Amino acid sequence: MILVIKKNSEKRQLDNLISWIKKLGLKINLSTGENSTVLGIVGDTSLVDIDLIRSLDIVESVKRISEPYKKANRKFHPENTIVSVGDAKFGGPHFSVIAGPCSVESEEQIISIAKSVKASGATAIRGGAFKPRTSPYAFQGLRADGIRLLLIAREETKLPIVTEIMSVTHLDLFRDIDIVQVGARNMQNFELLKELGRINKPILLKRGLANTIEEWLMSAEYIMAEGNEQIILCERGIRTFEHYTRNTLDLSAIPLMKELTHLPVIVDPSHASGLSRLVEPLSLAATGVGSDGLIIEVHNNPEKALCDGPQCIRPTQFDTLMKRINVILPLTGKNNIV
Amino acid sequence: MILVIKKNSEKRQLDNLISWIKKLGLKINLSTGENSTVLGIVGDTSLVDIDLIRSLDIVESVKRISEPYKKANRKFHPENTIVSVGDAKFGGPHFSVIAGPCSVESEEQIISIAKSVKASGATAIRGGAFKPRTSPYAFQGLRADGIRLLLIAREETKLPIVTEIMSVTHLDLFRDIDIVQVGARNMQNFELLKELGRINKPILLKRGLANTIEEWLMSAEYIMAEGNEQIILCERGIRTFEHYTRNTLDLSAIPLMKELTHLPVIVDPSHASGLSRLVEPLSLAATGVGSDGLIIEVHNNPEKALCDGPQCIRPTQFDTLMKRINVILPLTGKNNIV
Amino acid sequence: MILVIKKNSEKRQLDNLISWIKKLGLKINLSTGENSTVLGIVGDTSLVDIDLIRSLDIVESVKRISEPYKKANRKFHPENTIVSVGDAKFGGPHFSVIAGPCSVESEEQIISIAKSVKASGATAIRGGAFKPRTSPYAFQGLRADGIRLLLIAREETKLPIVTEIMSVTHLDLFRDIDIVQVGARNMQNFELLKELGRINKPILLKRGLANTIEEWLMSAEYIMAEGNEQIILCERGIRTFEHYTRNTLDLSAIPLMKELTHLPVIVDPSHASGLSRLVEPLSLAATGVGSDGLIIEVHNNPEKALCDGPQCIRPTQFDTLMKRINVILPLTGKNNIV
Amino acid sequence: MILVIKKNSEKRQLDNLISWIKKLGLKINLSTGENSTVLGIVGDTSLVDIDLIRSLDIVESVKRISEPYKKANRKFHPENTIVSVGDAKFGGPHFSVIAGPCSVESEEQIISIAKSVKASGATAIRGGAFKPRTSPYAFQGLRADGIRLLLIAREETKLPIVTEIMSVTHLDLFRDIDIVQVGARNMQNFELLKELGRINKPILLKRGLANTIEEWLMSAEYIMAEGNEQIILCERGIRTFEHYTRNTLDLSAIPLMKELTHLPVIVDPSHASGLSRLVEPLSLAATGVGSDGLIIEVHNNPEKALCDGPQCIRPTQFDTLMKRINVILPLTGKNNIV
Repeated sequence: MILVIKKNSEKRQLDNLISWIKKLGLKINLSTGENSTVLGIVGDTSLVDIDLIRSLDIVESVKRISEPYKKANRKFHPENTIVSVGDAKFGGPHFSVIAGPCSVESEEQIISIAKSVKASGATAIRGGAFKPRTSPYAFQGLRADGIRLLLIAREETKLPIVTEIMSVTHLDLFRDIDIVQVGARNMQNFELLKELGRINKPILLKRGLANTIEEWLMSAEYIMAEGNEQIILCERGIRTFEHYTRNTLDLSAIPLMKELTHLPVIVDPSHASGLSRLVEPLSLAATGVGSDGLIIEVHNNPEKALCDGPQCIRPTQFDTLMKRINVILPLTGKNNIV
Repeated sequence: MILVIKKNSEKRQLDNLISWIKKLGLKINLSTGENSTVLGIVGDTSLVDIDLIRSLDIVESVKRISEPYKKANRKFHPENTIVSVGDAKFGGPHFSVIAGPCSVESEEQIISIAKSVKASGATAIRGGAFKPRTSPYAFQGLRADGIRLLLIAREETKLPIVTEIMSVTHLDLFRDIDIVQVGARNMQNFELLKELGRINKPILLKRGLANTIEEWLMSAEYIMAEGNEQIILCERGIRTFEHYTRNTLDLSAIPLMKELTHLPVIVDPSHASGLSRLVEPLSLAATGVGSDGLIIEVHNNPEKALCDGPQCIRPTQFDTLMKRINVILPLTGKNNIV
Repeated sequence: MILVIKKNSEKRQLDNLISWIKKLGLKINLSTGENSTVLGIVGDTSLVDIDLIRSLDIVESVKRISEPYKKANRKFHPENTIVSVGDAKFGGPHFSVIAGPCSVESEEQIISIAKSVKASGATAIRGGAFKPRTSPYAFQGLRADGIRLLLIAREETKLPIVTEIMSVTHLDLFRDIDIVQVGARNMQNFELLKELGRINKPILLKRGLANTIEEWLMSAEYIMAEGNEQIILCERGIRTFEHYTRNTLDLSAIPLMKELTHLPVIVDPSHASGLSRLVEPLSLAATGVGSDGLIIEVHNNPEKALCDGPQCIRPTQFDTLMKRINVILPLTGKNNIV
Repeated sequence: MILVIKKNSEKRQLDNLISWIKKLGLKINLSTGENSTVLGIVGDTSLVDIDLIRSLDIVESVKRISEPYKKANRKFHPENTIVSVGDAKFGGPHFSVIAGPCSVESEEQIISIAKSVKASGATAIRGGAFKPRTSPYAFQGLRADGIRLLLIAREETKLPIVTEIMSVTHLDLFRDIDIVQVGARNMQNFELLKELGRINKPILLKRGLANTIEEWLMSAEYIMAEGNEQIILCERGIRTFEHYTRNTLDLSAIPLMKELTHLPVIVDPSHASGLSRLVEPLSLAATGVGSDGLIIEVHNNPEKALCDGPQCIRPTQFDTLMKRINVILPLTGKNNIV
């Protein structure tokens, strides 16, 4: 960590800072220039709160040399982590597609979609039981009943199930779920992350609407610090000034994340734009950019099921899409999926 | 709600949409132009998910006429809501300042600061017991012990206590806390909001880092929909491309919020910038723009307590600041505070 | 255009507004509800300044039904516009790659790169002569000399030349340039746009750092309104809170732009991230998302030519990239390029 | 400047980088750690392009120690610069208010407003002659005629005139204008900035919509590098995800700018929000935060002159506002204005 100290700072304040840093067990290199003094801090600086340092009166600016995340850091784990549940494998040469409806609506619906996407090559089923909604007056999902229907769909298809958790208090209901999803709005729900670090199943961690790459990795670190290292990261669009799409899908983040972390990273093209007609072009783009997989909303009758339709594609569209993705996979060193 | 339908849309799709809307109990006015068809939807459109509508293939664009929040809406409650706990009154002609340390550290610390800020005119004490931290390796607060120390400080000063809750599972610990704070990262932790709607004490609801004014009001609505209407909203800075400050304090939001809602709105100048030297200018600005109060971090020894120092000012600075704020208050129709 | 009028607005103010709108030759439909009055304005509303309307005291909100751009609007020109110069064709089934160094440095350099990228399938040469630089102390390009060297490279390769203009006063120097580029910082330099509307050669219009899709199309409209309809739009990344990459490449914008306008849209993967190792993944992504072409920085010796290296790839990397792009093209309905 | 070099970088690449830096006349301190090598570059690093360095393959990250701006830097000019034209003084203990209509419309209009704002304490007159408009179909201002009318208003009131320039080619028309304004969209029109650096009159430099504090100062540096050091900086709102206001006024920037530069910094509350009813609260906030002045739109008949009304206040409102501002000024060390 490099600290630039303001010109004309009081010696007493600088001495206080130095002795505080030394108490944390860190070493200091001091170099004094004409216009500023530079402190190099050596040792495990993940203990140091950078925001705190930055805002001290005598500090002009501060910069980390080593990243604050360790277990998620590729520097210390150069090999790709591969997260597997059944045939769904994420990372390394593997590319997996999770598919299913936005919300679970009925046994017939979830089984029908699950079978259909399995036939097209999907290796896991998604479906919302607990739904995060901006409005308290909007439909909040089938909740416990939705979980039950998902488990029936698993029984029928033998595919693993992915669904979103919204509260620590629902953890018991997720006992038989295969992959627990943390939504964008809960990416920094730290108490939830800690609990998920204590269970033994893969976590699908979505990037928050306005969270940086570093914050995203720090949230993965929260889970890993408690012992659970099976994490699949998922880019789903960030909030920008452009409101023509609901979010701006940050595809540049994928190759960068693959440099910074050994964890698999997938893309959600359905929520990024909120427009079903963008699902195919964004899926092809995500595949080309080097994603380890996709999570796609598919509905058997988007027109009828209005409350689900917008960002969903139909099973036949999904089937065509899988074949197109397959053409691109070898260009990024991935195994074919169909 | 106004929907613009794409030119050349299939009649069947439009008919489906219209019949779906009618099933929700809403009326429709249809007007067909040369380049587009416009649907006006009349009735309680808070039931309609605007994102869903927007993303239907036949919909070119959509616009709400009435806001999706009701209980928080000034249209239906033109009178200012005044939230009171002891001498702390927020809203209408009242301006209150909440002050205290970033984190509770010790009985001596919290009592000393509490007495000092009370002497300067603060009407409530803040102090972090549960601390949301980006890193799992950073100090997470004294937690239950911190709550206990805050209650001792209340005993000593008779001032109400404000502190942040991070999980539904901690609710019991907050039984004797006067004002429960929801932090920016939990603004859309909907399960937490619902629980807070079922208790009978004021909630200080901070704006999320990247949340719009409408989303902020919808989160207030979540609490109010469950029955708790004592909400104090708090602007604390939003995330923008400018990283010179930690966040960009959105002061224009204050007069706009005062138009849209009857709830009191205060400002947190300490977290907005993360720089103690900006606390005074931003406090004067917040007062001038019409805020109903402030929440300020004050520490008795910012230099020693490094882990707290950056955004904190000292009690003597706080005392001077209160006198300066007092000069501005009459310009915005507020009662004096000192 | 739909205007929502505030409840309890003064009748006199509403009458003034209505009579002002009628004077512009527009018709009005008035519908009065319980909580608001809605005005539907019918006619050529591109004459109406939406910001002005929005900010009138009696107006609660306003929404356009028809887009403010006409000549660029696909509604009025459903057929794709194809912009051609020599073998470089953009739009419809055509995909073209423009390649060359960031800055023109010497005759040897530009000719060598030009020949090499031509051999790999590029159909136009790029090279900076006038360089927009944040710092007045940084190298500003070879300027007139750079233009001269570009024309020599054209002579040698017979490929058309693309280079950036930074001021109306340099227009004479661009007499023999084939495609004139408007950089992101000049996207709303309206006086420059008007002049470019009066010349008869293609304009490559980059999206501004923080400009919306609509503003981008309005800038194209500025050029087209003066008579020049040969415009190639270019997405090159927008500014967001994420600073790990220089900009966030907005690939969702490509399929949306293709819906809104008949003009070709290409992508610049080099400037978006500012990192040469992201050029290949972002190029594959841009191809998959449906771009009409790419503009890529290629340098014969990125290591030596430090002032150019960062976002440049080498000719051999470019050659491999072209072959990979070629695999994806048929998936988006494009002709092969190699 | 501090460069962090990636672990396992090729020695040859590092040697190339070091020799290139040395050729620029800079010295290097090299320190090699377990996970990274750190290069400290000492000397005049304003010559080094930080984006270039950042994007070299072997560079993990880079950080400036000294700012890239010199003439605008308070470190090298600790005294406040005071820019004066007639009674209008900006900087140090001086606070000045520039006022006038959005657009110049007629001789009667500009003279009447000018006299009225002068009577309330304004020390300079603003009025748009050349208007930057998003749409080519919108009214573009009276242009040369507008300049002529502004000069008549100066004759009548003896107050200096501020108006916006949009192209280098109009420079002759601005011969008699007192303060030349550069609008947000031209903040990085570098060719225009260079020309303005060669004239001898104050420049009012507005911050770009999406430009950082550092970029803003670099644009001031462009003007100063050519010899003109009379610059007034003007914050007018930045573009964020929040679209309820047209822009987000970044008031935290004011005290930060006052630390970084010796140049005066003023605020434009009219354009920031685009809403006339926010002009007063934002003006009081800007005064409280420590601005050196304001530029406010005032219109004698906002209702009639619809094309001007929205962000304008009336002369009587302006008069009241000036008296309220006056109450706050002593709190920030400023002289009274009325």
